[in-house]
Amino acid sequence: MNKNARGSLAIISGPSGVGKSTVIAEVLRRRPDLYFSVSFTTRTPRPGEVNGVNYHFVDVPEFERMIRDGELLEHAQYSGNYYGTSAKLIDEKLEQGIDVLLDIEVVGSKIVHDQRPDTPLMFVIPPSFEVLEQRLRGRNTDSEEVIQRRLSRAKEELKEIYRYDYLIVNDTVENAAEDVLAILRAEGCRTANRAYLLKEE
Amino acid sequence: MNKNARGSLAIISGPSGVGKSTVIAEVLRRRPDLYFSVSFTTRTPRPGEVNGVNYHFVDVPEFERMIRDGELLEHAQYSGNYYGTSAKLIDEKLEQGIDVLLDIEVVGSKIVHDQRPDTPLMFVIPPSFEVLEQRLRGRNTDSEEVIQRRLSRAKEELKEIYRYDYLIVNDTVENAAEDVLAILRAEGCRTANRAYLLKEE
Repeated sequence: MNKNARGSLAIISGPSGVGKSTVIAEVLRRRPDLYFSVSFTTRTPRPGEVNGVNYHFVDVPEFERMIRDGELLEHAQYSGNYYGTSAKLIDEKLEQGIDVLLDIEVVGSKIVHDQRPDTPLMFVIPPSFEVLEQRLRGRNTDSEEVIQRRLSRAKEELKEIYRYDYLIVNDTVENAAEDVLAILRAEGCRTANRAYLLKEE
Repeated sequence: MNKNARGSLAIISGPSGVGKSTVIAEVLRRRPDLYFSVSFTTRTPRPGEVNGVNYHFVDVPEFERMIRDGELLEHAQYSGNYYGTSAKLIDEKLEQGIDVLLDIEVVGSKIVHDQRPDTPLMFVIPPSFEVLEQRLRGRNTDSEEVIQRRLSRAKEELKEIYRYDYLIVNDTVENAAEDVLAILRAEGCRTANRAYLLKEE
């Protein structure tokens, strides 16, 4: 919001099926100034997914070129597909004073956090594990095998929850989005992020 | 908000004349569920100040009794007056799941933070030092000597700003209150404060 300030980076993560995308969409609707960093992936788009919106969909040779050229802040493989985040895109926005929200898988969030330890980590959790299972089944896009794999991965991920700074309970989209917006605003108030103000004194 | 959760404690501090009381009043208007911990003091009430609202005004023997009986979380002396915070009142509210906001002088905030290191510290700063001076003069309640003493203390306090977690710029009351509300909500989302949710898993 202030031209003198560098933008803040924040990470949002969570198990598959938790409704993270819907929460993020609501956050972006309320904060259109926010830059949402879209991940690159080699996985096949799901019905309705749009290139450049849900993901940047690229093929394996292109993804491997990006790795070799050092263009990625992090990358990982899940279910045989690559996922990765462009460092270049993010840093350009931060330099311009624009806040950046990153949606990354759990392993990726760990890698980014190791490189940029001041980045707040948010983790979206379901109100209960039963709700998560219902949502995964309700999506009707995955086979039973995939659902079981996602559920057992979610269980593993929940064990690492204490690594995260913030837990967002997705009971309603409005509540969860309000939590994320509050965290982004609060992070912008951190003394380290407002140090530029003190130079005037 | 959740009956199973313990309340969160947050501290707000800032130089005299920065408009902290007005910001706090707006925060409490928007969050009537919040318990505002009113300090005890032996100083004389200013015109318009109400006992139990601005401060609990007590005499020196009563204040010294509270010190002796260990009823205070912190206490300090400024300009020849005692200021202190009741630990008992605060802990009762936290146990009931009520969030508590503490308005304390800089030295007192340091003492509380040493005892309860997870407590977030907010510091209200003026948009500029000139604005602070104007506000102190505009209040018309203090002698020139007192104003000068407050200004030089404010300069000292601003040097310690890096000890605080958050800086609240009081450019407008609405903006500053919105920052405080966001911080309180964000702090409530901290993994440590939401650990009770994970017990259900």
